[in-house]
Amino acid sequence: MIFIVNQQPHHPFLFGRHGRGSVIIILMPFTIAVDIGGTHIRAASYLPETTSATSHCRVRSFANEPGVYDRLVQAIESIWPKDKVNAIGIASPGPLDPHAGSILATPNIPEWRNFPVGPNLSRHFGLPVYLDNDANMAGLAEWQYGAGKGHHDLVYITISTGIGGGVISNDHLLQGFHGMAAELGHMIIDPDGPPCGCGHNGHVESFSSGPAIARYVNEQIRIGRQSSLQADPMLSGQQVADAALRGDALAIAAFERAGYYLGIALANYLAIFDPSILIFGGGVSQVGDLLFKPFESSLREHTFHPHYLDDLVIAKAALGDDAGLLGALALARMRSQE
Amino acid sequence: MIFIVNQQPHHPFLFGRHGRGSVIIILMPFTIAVDIGGTHIRAASYLPETTSATSHCRVRSFANEPGVYDRLVQAIESIWPKDKVNAIGIASPGPLDPHAGSILATPNIPEWRNFPVGPNLSRHFGLPVYLDNDANMAGLAEWQYGAGKGHHDLVYITISTGIGGGVISNDHLLQGFHGMAAELGHMIIDPDGPPCGCGHNGHVESFSSGPAIARYVNEQIRIGRQSSLQADPMLSGQQVADAALRGDALAIAAFERAGYYLGIALANYLAIFDPSILIFGGGVSQVGDLLFKPFESSLREHTFHPHYLDDLVIAKAALGDDAGLLGALALARMRSQE
Repeated sequence: MIFIVNQQPHHPFLFGRHGRGSVIIILMPFTIAVDIGGTHIRAASYLPETTSATSHCRVRSFANEPGVYDRLVQAIESIWPKDKVNAIGIASPGPLDPHAGSILATPNIPEWRNFPVGPNLSRHFGLPVYLDNDANMAGLAEWQYGAGKGHHDLVYITISTGIGGGVISNDHLLQGFHGMAAELGHMIIDPDGPPCGCGHNGHVESFSSGPAIARYVNEQIRIGRQSSLQADPMLSGQQVADAALRGDALAIAAFERAGYYLGIALANYLAIFDPSILIFGGGVSQVGDLLFKPFESSLREHTFHPHYLDDLVIAKAALGDDAGLLGALALARMRSQE
Repeated sequence: MIFIVNQQPHHPFLFGRHGRGSVIIILMPFTIAVDIGGTHIRAASYLPETTSATSHCRVRSFANEPGVYDRLVQAIESIWPKDKVNAIGIASPGPLDPHAGSILATPNIPEWRNFPVGPNLSRHFGLPVYLDNDANMAGLAEWQYGAGKGHHDLVYITISTGIGGGVISNDHLLQGFHGMAAELGHMIIDPDGPPCGCGHNGHVESFSSGPAIARYVNEQIRIGRQSSLQADPMLSGQQVADAALRGDALAIAAFERAGYYLGIALANYLAIFDPSILIFGGGVSQVGDLLFKPFESSLREHTFHPHYLDDLVIAKAALGDDAGLLGALALARMRSQE
């Protein structure tokens, strides 16, 4: 009988007296977490109750080339502990089916179409594998280990080249019937709005993501608006932010517009989820007041009822680049305890 | 020791042999459900596992006059069973705080401002009282006893003078931090849209509720559009529906427009909640194809990813006017078992 005396992080073996003086060895199982990104695959092993990896590996994914799955397996094998592992958690770009453990299609990894990465890894390693999309996992991580600790109702939004989200409601991760809930960037907030990367129009992502901000600046320059920036199809949100910080009026207006529409979207999410905390992650959210002053003003203007704002916390994500990995860890721990 | 032999609906007392031939009497507790409406208050008592009331009362609420609370207490007392009661559940118009059991403010009952109806009734009857808003309760009822039985992820929408909603996600009722989640009628889908009854602009309620449909017809007649209807501030959604069924082109267009915007809103809710069933209640949803043909076409057009539509059920509410009452019953049963 395995008899867990105590959970001591960083000590996989525990020794305790059991029965008539016999000494038993207690194995503390590791959990493996994996974050599959367009540029890198990360894998790490964790002892119970810790969020510092005992070993960690980060390799290029070469997502456009064949063999992504083999590189994924190698990355996991490279950090495999000598001792027992209980489960593997994976954060991956979506859309994916977390119930089946399959990647449906992800623009970053063209090789993977309806690809059962979960079942394949589960067969390979002989362990349960749990999978969900990177934004859900970042939300889960912020709730368990980051800015959202202690909250029961949380909305996490990541703003970078796209806008993604993760929602915890009454201590439950929102996943949905097909596992595709909380696609918070793809809410239509103006049917006549600009085109979104996904092909639809007027999603909040098409107003407030990095590329949306850059596109607006390009459009305004083309219709004759003055700016220190030049119209440039390669213009980035970061370049617009730099220009705004130098006082460029158009660049400032671009962030005001992005913040305004972000406020509309989040006012909707208050009426929909009624969270106690909003957490913002992703590169674009690093610009600070440029985006968040107009955001907060728009949020107040558009919130259905002022009661939603009572005791509402608005926070920056605390876990940075580790959010996906730590979310995968949290998912594997949660599911293997169910 | 109370020894429950069997749960037999309609027989509050069960007799069974226990121990050395002694006969014990098993008391089956009743649950009381209450639906507070602008025109009527309903109260009913139910035996375990039944949804047919053993007694039922429906009285005028005279919501604009003093004494609503006294009429509520009298209604409950009038159906009070001779036997044990375990809990009282209440469906009320919101906004309200289900955690505190308080009505914040409801346009229908001006007398009640921050009114602790739950704690007051709990003190009066010496029992736990559970409260939530009528749309949440209708969604809960449809899930437990109606069109949504067996589903785990459900979005309920009621369309009448307003638009309300109730959401079940992974078998949990969505309530939120302040208990004000799932205000599904107050999502902004066009910031420049028409004014909503709540004072904001471009909510789905301002496009697709009964009054919104009638207002659109009035506006179009005023700018010269032909119709068998006359511009009339008292025009109702029902009159527009009647005209549409007689072939009036403007009335038909008014429902097409309402269905179009409803499709946008529900496309958003698919990306947000990823339900397996959408259930429509409320008077406006009774018009059928007039609204739902354009709705379905718009839903398909605007849904972020076609996978959301796989195996999605779109259903009419099954419980009619009893939905609020049965939701209050379901809430009291759920919470008193926690």
